[in-house]
Amino acid sequence: MDNFQIRTDLALEARESVNEEESKLRGVSVEEHYEEEADLRITKVTIDTKNAEKMLGKPMGVYVTMEAPAMVEPDDDYHREISEALAEELLKMMPQEQEEQSVLVVGLGNREVTADALGPQVVDNLLITRHVVKNYGKAAYNCTRMNLVSSIEPGVMAKTGMETAEIISGVVKETGPDVLIVVDALAARSTRRLNRTIQITNTGIQPGSGVGNHRNALTQETLGVPVIAIGIPTVVDAATIVGDALEKLMSGEKEFDAVKYMGQHRMAFAELNNMYMTGKDIDSVVKRVSYTVSEGINIAMEKSFVV
Amino acid sequence: MDNFQIRTDLALEARESVNEEESKLRGVSVEEHYEEEADLRITKVTIDTKNAEKMLGKPMGVYVTMEAPAMVEPDDDYHREISEALAEELLKMMPQEQEEQSVLVVGLGNREVTADALGPQVVDNLLITRHVVKNYGKAAYNCTRMNLVSSIEPGVMAKTGMETAEIISGVVKETGPDVLIVVDALAARSTRRLNRTIQITNTGIQPGSGVGNHRNALTQETLGVPVIAIGIPTVVDAATIVGDALEKLMSGEKEFDAVKYMGQHRMAFAELNNMYMTGKDIDSVVKRVSYTVSEGINIAMEKSFVV
Amino acid sequence: MDNFQIRTDLALEARESVNEEESKLRGVSVEEHYEEEADLRITKVTIDTKNAEKMLGKPMGVYVTMEAPAMVEPDDDYHREISEALAEELLKMMPQEQEEQSVLVVGLGNREVTADALGPQVVDNLLITRHVVKNYGKAAYNCTRMNLVSSIEPGVMAKTGMETAEIISGVVKETGPDVLIVVDALAARSTRRLNRTIQITNTGIQPGSGVGNHRNALTQETLGVPVIAIGIPTVVDAATIVGDALEKLMSGEKEFDAVKYMGQHRMAFAELNNMYMTGKDIDSVVKRVSYTVSEGINIAMEKSFVV
Amino acid sequence: MDNFQIRTDLALEARESVNEEESKLRGVSVEEHYEEEADLRITKVTIDTKNAEKMLGKPMGVYVTMEAPAMVEPDDDYHREISEALAEELLKMMPQEQEEQSVLVVGLGNREVTADALGPQVVDNLLITRHVVKNYGKAAYNCTRMNLVSSIEPGVMAKTGMETAEIISGVVKETGPDVLIVVDALAARSTRRLNRTIQITNTGIQPGSGVGNHRNALTQETLGVPVIAIGIPTVVDAATIVGDALEKLMSGEKEFDAVKYMGQHRMAFAELNNMYMTGKDIDSVVKRVSYTVSEGINIAMEKSFVV
Repeated sequence: MDNFQIRTDLALEARESVNEEESKLRGVSVEEHYEEEADLRITKVTIDTKNAEKMLGKPMGVYVTMEAPAMVEPDDDYHREISEALAEELLKMMPQEQEEQSVLVVGLGNREVTADALGPQVVDNLLITRHVVKNYGKAAYNCTRMNLVSSIEPGVMAKTGMETAEIISGVVKETGPDVLIVVDALAARSTRRLNRTIQITNTGIQPGSGVGNHRNALTQETLGVPVIAIGIPTVVDAATIVGDALEKLMSGEKEFDAVKYMGQHRMAFAELNNMYMTGKDIDSVVKRVSYTVSEGINIAMEKSFVV
Repeated sequence: MDNFQIRTDLALEARESVNEEESKLRGVSVEEHYEEEADLRITKVTIDTKNAEKMLGKPMGVYVTMEAPAMVEPDDDYHREISEALAEELLKMMPQEQEEQSVLVVGLGNREVTADALGPQVVDNLLITRHVVKNYGKAAYNCTRMNLVSSIEPGVMAKTGMETAEIISGVVKETGPDVLIVVDALAARSTRRLNRTIQITNTGIQPGSGVGNHRNALTQETLGVPVIAIGIPTVVDAATIVGDALEKLMSGEKEFDAVKYMGQHRMAFAELNNMYMTGKDIDSVVKRVSYTVSEGINIAMEKSFVV
Repeated sequence: MDNFQIRTDLALEARESVNEEESKLRGVSVEEHYEEEADLRITKVTIDTKNAEKMLGKPMGVYVTMEAPAMVEPDDDYHREISEALAEELLKMMPQEQEEQSVLVVGLGNREVTADALGPQVVDNLLITRHVVKNYGKAAYNCTRMNLVSSIEPGVMAKTGMETAEIISGVVKETGPDVLIVVDALAARSTRRLNRTIQITNTGIQPGSGVGNHRNALTQETLGVPVIAIGIPTVVDAATIVGDALEKLMSGEKEFDAVKYMGQHRMAFAELNNMYMTGKDIDSVVKRVSYTVSEGINIAMEKSFVV
Repeated sequence: MDNFQIRTDLALEARESVNEEESKLRGVSVEEHYEEEADLRITKVTIDTKNAEKMLGKPMGVYVTMEAPAMVEPDDDYHREISEALAEELLKMMPQEQEEQSVLVVGLGNREVTADALGPQVVDNLLITRHVVKNYGKAAYNCTRMNLVSSIEPGVMAKTGMETAEIISGVVKETGPDVLIVVDALAARSTRRLNRTIQITNTGIQPGSGVGNHRNALTQETLGVPVIAIGIPTVVDAATIVGDALEKLMSGEKEFDAVKYMGQHRMAFAELNNMYMTGKDIDSVVKRVSYTVSEGINIAMEKSFVV
């Protein structure tokens, strides 16, 4: 937090914070779709040019955001609908050449920190098939085509002494999956989006993203296979929310720039360093939404092998 | 957060936020003591009058605060020193009439939410003796005097459907301890105090305190036995930290009052409701400080039965 | 295990081990029912006399056993069927006088020991309503009649220093539930019944039962309210399985009695003391069956308040 | 368990079960050493020939066994002594060429199954240094020579869909450690050795060993770097303990062979398949001994970098 940047892992929020006309010119396209019955808003942000990439601070690629306000509610039927919508979006992003794919799901984050436990909790509820198919053939599942699903929870560097990217890279080389699905807890700018937004992107994981702030990229470029990232914002960066409050207070004053002000008074705001804000019911929320994501991945993997 | 109060569970911070002269007049006394070698500052705030109680928003009683900056560091020897200092302060606060006491340690909070897991993690590492002494006599520990230590982790209302106070009250009536030690994670005003401050008080637990915001009191008045509370601040209330930032920005403007301003613009700040701020390494910090507190209680319990 | 008794917590197995004719005479009746579609065998053992109680070593009352071989399989639809059957049996055993009931569900056992974690894991997934109805009225659930569900996980004596019965008794007196549902992991005689059998009884919990060997009773007599116990066998007592193997080997020799033999050679078999046998996949099995039981209780609680 | 083998992961027990004279001839040497004060028996079994390897069913190499009866007791000072002795034995087995080494500690087993959680719990308490030295240099620890310690908990195949050996092999190739220390829960033949015996060997992990029965080897041959394995027996194989009881009963009958008998009556003993026996207090025991092992590794790693 050297210069008190406004921090968001959501391309949707990055897009909202810049001038709309300009962003179109520079190569950002936005498509929106609302499913009334499910109260589900799906927005697809496509970043097409290097200019757009620079403007939004997000790499070129496709970012689908599913906003589902009721995602925090304990309604099983509703969560099933979201899981199914997630499966659909996920399948659209999967490389389609192969009929059977070997998919490695990576649960990023720290199981011991509730707001960062999304990834580990998602992999807990996956239907893992790779070892069964390898050992007993597809016949074990009574089908002729079958995805091979494997998963790993790499842990955090403070505990492993290794970069997540080192661990994943080694495992990818050794086990040769066709595609990676990486799941991580994200930081949003607005508390309004916490726990009720799912972002799916084909750009993988960028350095500095996620609740745990990954240092290295997990992308097709670094790993050699396509990397789809699924993220749900569970925290707001402390400096960002304070900056936003300052802007609200000074909204009359044209020349006020919270980022600049906080940078100038770094010492006064230094305590916000490495702090994040989260909700008091984060445990039950993460438990619920991680299950929704697991189910989404399970449905996508099953669907794709039905002849 | 109906009116955006400044929130702190530390009597020390409550005392800092009011006029010093006035607080003396009204019945607040402060004693400070610094142990250079251990870099440990011990402050004793005594609230003697109803007036002082009202002014600070904390009930009459004694509040000892131990500030130990290195408490967040992974230095085992240092933690032992803090545990010993904690044991000493704890023993000073225990009712002294009885030589052998039956002590029930209550671990408040939510094990599933890292910043609120202090209480449950502390009871995990206690030396529990009540059942052994009840069944085999003190001879089991080769001594003639012996404290009976028991513990309970009552869980949170969302999971039990019961007030913590109902559960504890029932257990106290049934098992008849002489004194309660209640351990809880607290909210501080300043991030500077997070995880490196221990507050010990003979006033028990008040409604609205703690990370989980207890609704009912756990006090001698409500439970019929003395209640000593040990707390460590692990979070800062989100509204409080934003209010403080606003005050910093407007520090030149005499008439600006952040609490009032935020109350007037309630809708704009509503998102801070039920949010708290915590550090990214909260898991390892809570693990370490909970162990320090367990050891402090264990030492205090042992000491008191050595003839 | 002073005298190497044959140990089973299942009334069904206790009944199988005695002479059928005699058991009828003495006051044991057995009704069996098989649901072919669900491959579910429901057996109701009723112990009517003190003589029968003595013969079987189980107190007078009703014991319903649901045997469902596929319970260990990961088939969600099938588990739903079992949950519904469990709900039905549970409702038959509930005291029917009141239309609205306050139900306290007690999760016995040790969360840290996988085979003993059934009770704690069941309470993790219950729909808890007592605090909501107490605070907001039944209107919160949009209905005019409503059960009040609360739950507690009392922990084990080694950790609390208190008998489970003390804790539960205190909580019952303080919160006044109409009925208790107590969930516990059991010991079976045969590995064939592990994890695929549910026993529901109106006799509560007896001393010496369960994986953790409860020392005190949790019954209507001791607690003052009806106590329904739900149990699933997850372990086999080590001495029992060894004794059974010895009997198999000596099955030709009329006069051989394993219990007597092991008693006579106590030293040689002392190592079996406090040991139990369980399956290697006990973690996933307990996770799955605990969810089935939670759902059964949830369905029963919901059903009873639908007008 | 196709043929009801007698199962033990301890070379010491394998050695005990064969004729002493013959084993000497064939290339097994045994050195024993007893430290009276610590009540610690250290036995070094060296398997020198292919013949001995075949006879004992353990690969050629050195197996050091530390038997410490009090290891199950909650005495901190005593555990420190064992940790120090473990560190010493561990250092003797480390490749000595390099002064600074990069050491990867692998915590095998299943965190969710108490008796199999030794490996994961050991890595929880290690002092991890690799990332700090990589990023800040040895100066971060105020020293000129420094071991680089990293760790990984690969999880179990049912959850990852990958062989443990695949994961470890990938991580080893990517991060290039000089030596592996692999920690695992073992199966003993005698309950007498459970939880109070530590085996350290330079032969790595063999297929079929451990509580979880690893399918692939983790050895210098398969991974390309020296592999030291540290194991503690926490379970006894169910078929083995039943076989031993049968042998006891038939000890008069010369011709009786339990393995043969059980093989002939496979169906009658099939229920013992995939079952193991463990103690009722396995949770607190594993917690304690895993801490002892962590400390042993930490001491060994520190010692080796003191100039």
